[in-house]
Amino acid sequence: MEIEIATIGGYEEVGRQMTAVRAGDDVVVFDMGLNLSQVLIHDNVETEKMHSLDLIDMGAIPDDRIMSELEGDVQAIVPTHGHLDHIGAISKLAHRYDAPVVATPFTIELVKQQVESEQKFGVENDLVKMDAGETMTIGDSGQVELEFVNVTHSIIDAINPVLHTPEGAVVYGLDKRMDHTPVIGDPIDMKRFREIGREGEGVLCYIEDCTNANKQGRTPSESVARRHLKDVMYSLEDYSGGIVATTFSSHIARVKSLVEFARDIGRQPVLLGRSMEKYSGTAERLGFVDFPGDLGMFGHRKSVDRTFKRVMKEGKGNFLPIVTGHQGEPRAMLTRMGRGETPYELEDGDKVIFSARVIPEPTNEGQRYQSERLLGMQGARIYSDIHVSGHLNREGHYQMLQALQPQNVIPAHQDMSGFSGYVNLAESEGYKMGRDLHVTRNGNLIQLTE
Amino acid sequence: MEIEIATIGGYEEVGRQMTAVRAGDDVVVFDMGLNLSQVLIHDNVETEKMHSLDLIDMGAIPDDRIMSELEGDVQAIVPTHGHLDHIGAISKLAHRYDAPVVATPFTIELVKQQVESEQKFGVENDLVKMDAGETMTIGDSGQVELEFVNVTHSIIDAINPVLHTPEGAVVYGLDKRMDHTPVIGDPIDMKRFREIGREGEGVLCYIEDCTNANKQGRTPSESVARRHLKDVMYSLEDYSGGIVATTFSSHIARVKSLVEFARDIGRQPVLLGRSMEKYSGTAERLGFVDFPGDLGMFGHRKSVDRTFKRVMKEGKGNFLPIVTGHQGEPRAMLTRMGRGETPYELEDGDKVIFSARVIPEPTNEGQRYQSERLLGMQGARIYSDIHVSGHLNREGHYQMLQALQPQNVIPAHQDMSGFSGYVNLAESEGYKMGRDLHVTRNGNLIQLTE
Amino acid sequence: MEIEIATIGGYEEVGRQMTAVRAGDDVVVFDMGLNLSQVLIHDNVETEKMHSLDLIDMGAIPDDRIMSELEGDVQAIVPTHGHLDHIGAISKLAHRYDAPVVATPFTIELVKQQVESEQKFGVENDLVKMDAGETMTIGDSGQVELEFVNVTHSIIDAINPVLHTPEGAVVYGLDKRMDHTPVIGDPIDMKRFREIGREGEGVLCYIEDCTNANKQGRTPSESVARRHLKDVMYSLEDYSGGIVATTFSSHIARVKSLVEFARDIGRQPVLLGRSMEKYSGTAERLGFVDFPGDLGMFGHRKSVDRTFKRVMKEGKGNFLPIVTGHQGEPRAMLTRMGRGETPYELEDGDKVIFSARVIPEPTNEGQRYQSERLLGMQGARIYSDIHVSGHLNREGHYQMLQALQPQNVIPAHQDMSGFSGYVNLAESEGYKMGRDLHVTRNGNLIQLTE
Amino acid sequence: MEIEIATIGGYEEVGRQMTAVRAGDDVVVFDMGLNLSQVLIHDNVETEKMHSLDLIDMGAIPDDRIMSELEGDVQAIVPTHGHLDHIGAISKLAHRYDAPVVATPFTIELVKQQVESEQKFGVENDLVKMDAGETMTIGDSGQVELEFVNVTHSIIDAINPVLHTPEGAVVYGLDKRMDHTPVIGDPIDMKRFREIGREGEGVLCYIEDCTNANKQGRTPSESVARRHLKDVMYSLEDYSGGIVATTFSSHIARVKSLVEFARDIGRQPVLLGRSMEKYSGTAERLGFVDFPGDLGMFGHRKSVDRTFKRVMKEGKGNFLPIVTGHQGEPRAMLTRMGRGETPYELEDGDKVIFSARVIPEPTNEGQRYQSERLLGMQGARIYSDIHVSGHLNREGHYQMLQALQPQNVIPAHQDMSGFSGYVNLAESEGYKMGRDLHVTRNGNLIQLTE
Repeated sequence: MEIEIATIGGYEEVGRQMTAVRAGDDVVVFDMGLNLSQVLIHDNVETEKMHSLDLIDMGAIPDDRIMSELEGDVQAIVPTHGHLDHIGAISKLAHRYDAPVVATPFTIELVKQQVESEQKFGVENDLVKMDAGETMTIGDSGQVELEFVNVTHSIIDAINPVLHTPEGAVVYGLDKRMDHTPVIGDPIDMKRFREIGREGEGVLCYIEDCTNANKQGRTPSESVARRHLKDVMYSLEDYSGGIVATTFSSHIARVKSLVEFARDIGRQPVLLGRSMEKYSGTAERLGFVDFPGDLGMFGHRKSVDRTFKRVMKEGKGNFLPIVTGHQGEPRAMLTRMGRGETPYELEDGDKVIFSARVIPEPTNEGQRYQSERLLGMQGARIYSDIHVSGHLNREGHYQMLQALQPQNVIPAHQDMSGFSGYVNLAESEGYKMGRDLHVTRNGNLIQLTE
Repeated sequence: MEIEIATIGGYEEVGRQMTAVRAGDDVVVFDMGLNLSQVLIHDNVETEKMHSLDLIDMGAIPDDRIMSELEGDVQAIVPTHGHLDHIGAISKLAHRYDAPVVATPFTIELVKQQVESEQKFGVENDLVKMDAGETMTIGDSGQVELEFVNVTHSIIDAINPVLHTPEGAVVYGLDKRMDHTPVIGDPIDMKRFREIGREGEGVLCYIEDCTNANKQGRTPSESVARRHLKDVMYSLEDYSGGIVATTFSSHIARVKSLVEFARDIGRQPVLLGRSMEKYSGTAERLGFVDFPGDLGMFGHRKSVDRTFKRVMKEGKGNFLPIVTGHQGEPRAMLTRMGRGETPYELEDGDKVIFSARVIPEPTNEGQRYQSERLLGMQGARIYSDIHVSGHLNREGHYQMLQALQPQNVIPAHQDMSGFSGYVNLAESEGYKMGRDLHVTRNGNLIQLTE
Repeated sequence: MEIEIATIGGYEEVGRQMTAVRAGDDVVVFDMGLNLSQVLIHDNVETEKMHSLDLIDMGAIPDDRIMSELEGDVQAIVPTHGHLDHIGAISKLAHRYDAPVVATPFTIELVKQQVESEQKFGVENDLVKMDAGETMTIGDSGQVELEFVNVTHSIIDAINPVLHTPEGAVVYGLDKRMDHTPVIGDPIDMKRFREIGREGEGVLCYIEDCTNANKQGRTPSESVARRHLKDVMYSLEDYSGGIVATTFSSHIARVKSLVEFARDIGRQPVLLGRSMEKYSGTAERLGFVDFPGDLGMFGHRKSVDRTFKRVMKEGKGNFLPIVTGHQGEPRAMLTRMGRGETPYELEDGDKVIFSARVIPEPTNEGQRYQSERLLGMQGARIYSDIHVSGHLNREGHYQMLQALQPQNVIPAHQDMSGFSGYVNLAESEGYKMGRDLHVTRNGNLIQLTE
Repeated sequence: MEIEIATIGGYEEVGRQMTAVRAGDDVVVFDMGLNLSQVLIHDNVETEKMHSLDLIDMGAIPDDRIMSELEGDVQAIVPTHGHLDHIGAISKLAHRYDAPVVATPFTIELVKQQVESEQKFGVENDLVKMDAGETMTIGDSGQVELEFVNVTHSIIDAINPVLHTPEGAVVYGLDKRMDHTPVIGDPIDMKRFREIGREGEGVLCYIEDCTNANKQGRTPSESVARRHLKDVMYSLEDYSGGIVATTFSSHIARVKSLVEFARDIGRQPVLLGRSMEKYSGTAERLGFVDFPGDLGMFGHRKSVDRTFKRVMKEGKGNFLPIVTGHQGEPRAMLTRMGRGETPYELEDGDKVIFSARVIPEPTNEGQRYQSERLLGMQGARIYSDIHVSGHLNREGHYQMLQALQPQNVIPAHQDMSGFSGYVNLAESEGYKMGRDLHVTRNGNLIQLTE
């Protein structure tokens, strides 16, 4: 059976991921993502109202024109998890394909919300839920099967899809960390990866998330971040003034830790900001997390302001607002707090906890610096970098290669410089560029078997 | 009563700490340290055989000539803990003073060993043990008392000495981290610091360890490093080849964690290298740590080689050698393993765990880089930076100021650039340079009361 | 005679410089500057309309309340050169003092323009011109004299004022580079500095610009930047498309080089942007520079747009627009060109020359990065860092100390961390902190003689 | 005619360059280099005595086994210039090929010296001189011709060889800077490159030196470094003590500038150290540079010591020793001077000029830091980084692509991360990886035409 990989987006950058795998006549698309930084550099852009071609020109969403060269029918669109760089282009591109979106329940719910907010296109693809550990037949050949293997990432309900073909498995490895003790959900299913590496024809191809491939060692478990966060928050137990925390709003495990430690030190947590409400609300509704019954989540400006007023009245010392703004985004809640634009008044000695790392790009670094300066001018004391990455470091990649023993590897989710560490690793494991190590770019086709 | 501080060493650098406090007629000396990097830059220097004046000229030990200007008698020499930059000059300088060395038991034992290895001077000062929480009368005035407050650092049995005088307490704050959950020993005694801040005349002066004063946030607890290390070591449970670890040999808590996790993953730990044997052996003998009965510790070249041969014979997969060499020191054990100079043969895929951070100085960085390259050429996989600092970051300094409310502060244990973060902090807390914030240098006298 | 120094502003930061020297009953104020970054962090602030007290609270202008403690009359306000951090607060503070502003002609002209744009205060101090090499009697004692020594900086007509007193000279050393071959004006007058060091009582006190005190070596001459710029521009001689350059608009020597090399490679230079017009227009009007008769300078939006349209019509290849925006400032000309908001259309292969360095602060770095990204998206090729600093590096400081042999030194124009290199240097030359090396902060008085 | 490229060495690193081009039955080898850092990491290695296979295993010289897969005869071995990473393996590999070494006169002379010092192999290949601008017929087909195009680099007499074939030219672009005003020799022959781009079949393939491909802008001309050096040295004209300079010993243009400026400021230059004597002596003998008749060059320890003694006796102020040691190499002259191991006594205020940049690798950085510390401990004042690179930055690469318009490009002389900037550039110019942009590794064959 002919197996062909179209590397459509995210092979020259982090963002706008999209990859298609053709097995005979059947095609499965993995991820359709949005590169938000390509949007934000322009003033006054509203992606909801924009046409896909304009977004392609901006480099914001994948250029999927190469799909017409794939001789097969798209049978499924499979986002691996709910981050925007993996699902953000579904509302712009999915309607072109007569295929369902297949994903885990939490991811499906986020896709649904995104499709609903879309204003330019009507997206009517079926949304099909499938859990980690489950499989689905693809196409009519009876020979191709889609499996979801549970992985651990900085968002819940993440999987690595595996396309089983007569020629071996194609493992789409975006995005994950090798976490044996995640705070929510099951550990990464390394046992299943090892089985896939050994069973049948083994692994024909492994497409790997190279975000951190240049970083040494092992990405720590979320438990390590949780232990670190606990250390910080417990150390503030005696403080009677204001404490504010921020993290990635989609990072439910982290939000859960913040909520729990807030209670442990005698504070009522409250989630503030639209995306905080969206992600945590969804996770709770779907049963992924069991927040305290009285946990407030407020997204609309009015209810946020009302909450802040209540906090000021009842005493900042009784609350832990968990807000947006970890990258210093100019309009996010925490930045506005630094500017004194909310009813929450920071005072000398108040604490601000960034349970996140600055995404290393000068724009973010500049904005975060401004935000910290503003907070500092109000007297805030800053705690930063209480975080672990959601992506494999070098030794995680090494262990995945040991587990899967793939015949071909394709580095993804980085630019050329970002691939370099992975190339070195793969070569030290006996792969050879141009033979079985495919360093590629957006818009290419790689034929694996004929 | 006249209170005067002589800032003798370690006020222009990290290393060769020495401070004297005069309260009326009585003088107490805190620390007598060695700056090893000033020694190592020269070829073939053996400090054991050198005269103190030559070492002073090299900038290796404190220039204590200012002591002659202090009108009082030295009643005690008080090292705060057993690191070389705090005790390393005792064998060169203490014999000039007719006073006992007073320290905690572990520190006293290390001082004793150092004095015994000294070849130039005969040091016959009494060595007096005093535990954290205890006090001692100083001199004959009946008005001055020395107290040891328990603190947490990267070595066990560390204290902050406090000199109680009629004018208030002088708190000598070197070196510590604010650790509420250390792996060995008691948490930092913040309760006592707060009491000292409130009782009697309060705190007249606080001398502070500024090593990390330019670093944001809070230094994590050793428990966080332990959790991180556990994550790394458990992730290697299935590996059947060689694993080697290195850390600061004086860091007993870390060695203990390495030993325990080695057992957890089915390996027999073994400590190799002279300083490994020295520190861990001493800690065990004094009852600070309870290692497994069969834990091997070998310092001499011959017994190390014998052990390595046994490891090779019985299978590397059954052992965890814990060795010296975390900074890539050219003659340390791990570097020699990288050069293939020991019987331990590294193979493709073997793991090397650096439970330490490179001390950020180009010499160390160059040597560590070389060491990692050599290890990598043998096939080793590297895990680095599994560590937390032993020194307060900025928020720890903030909390200490809140607790002690000192009338005067003196930043120490850094150069001018390293003091800058502390100066900013102290000023934001209302201190003023030249009034109650004393930025000083080696060889100065600061008169606090008349 | 009592000599006293009030270190009012710019001793904890770069920006808002202000220092007062009292010699007996007479006081001279050196510089009254504005720290623009403290203004820009706030949204929508118009300094022209603000009260000085609010600007003091923001940390934007010097807090001159310490002046009331100086027992003498202000006889002159002496800005050293025309940069905003040295003259920007004159319109807010000078009216409080019954004293003329004394400065070189170019600086006086810039002060005049600033005072005219002020909307809150009426500033009616006399504006008195004095050239480098000239002197002026200060007060009625007949013993105090003000001298201007010619120095070289990144703006023309810069001087170091020297206050001659019976106790020796007070040399105010802000801001300069030691340039023996400047492109405009005379070399730094080291001969005169050496004389001042030797004559009479020598130098009682030297206040030094420490901006680059942590940088090794010697700051190159403007001639080196000019040679570098020539190399870049001549290398583009064959390019027939658009070339755009940007630099500090107050940097007349650099603008002159750009103008000349533009002509050499067959292009008509044109200066665009309000501050470009302001500084270059002033310099030409005062005869400091002799631009080609037909050199266009346009500041108003309308005339800029008209010029751009003419450039587009007659061919970009015939012009070199020299514009504002070297730091990526969001509203500057070059950034707007990157956004496609001007009639100048960038095309693939067009060149943008940054004859400036990014001021190293995350805000600037973020904005400059955004600007370069936008320009790159239009196809522009970027040439950066064609620049030399206007401030002494370490060896310049060394040579100044050799020349002046001052009895006291006061580091200025930096924060504590920035002072550190200067402190190390001064100590290696025999100065001692707290004795004759005065590390100080905003708002302090230093009494030098009684 | 079949054209094939074997990318043998230097495609995964900087160092051990080697590339072979087959045109029909004829093969030309470009460069045979040594990667010295792979040698130096081991203790006590003497390359002169080592076998090529051991050096291949160490990664020190190219693994030329792929040559057996090239179906043709090697007609010439063509080193582009005399740096070790281009000629250092000739003594180990050339004897395997029945072909002359063809190079410019200066390069040939250096090859000759290297071959003479070889102790393991007898290398008897003919050494054939050919000047820039000349051509030579390759093989018997009458269709292949080798041309040398003059380029500018940090060593004199550098060329880019061009192999003219019926299918177009293969331009081997290692190593160069685009210098229109070099200090010695002719400017880069861009006119000829442009002709080659246009004439006949144009350029079939361009192999490019990517050392600096990630660096923005244009590499400045050697004239800029010369102007910078002049600025530094003239600024020291009044200093009457010792001045010492160091630079790359093979960098004849820089040595010439040092020699000339030494005279200008009244000092007698003298070249000290074995490699100083070797390169400058050779350049003078061959007439590339016209040093003053009395310029001393001393390589042997004894004559160096004698010279130092004479300098000390006649007064350091009369001399400028130009010595080895710019990277802080532990045994180089300058490092030994820092250790006080030579008769030259450094004193407070003496100057050390590093007319070189640290090659950015932790080993060098550590050693250079140590060297500067030692020099500083003797009182030396340090001037660093008075240098320009010998390699094209990004805009040089852009201009080469514009000039040559090659059908294929092959990035070389870097690792994968180092290639990334070049890949981005080439893609923005319309090349596509896997089609006409060949990102490759050591040991690959690229078939360009069939």
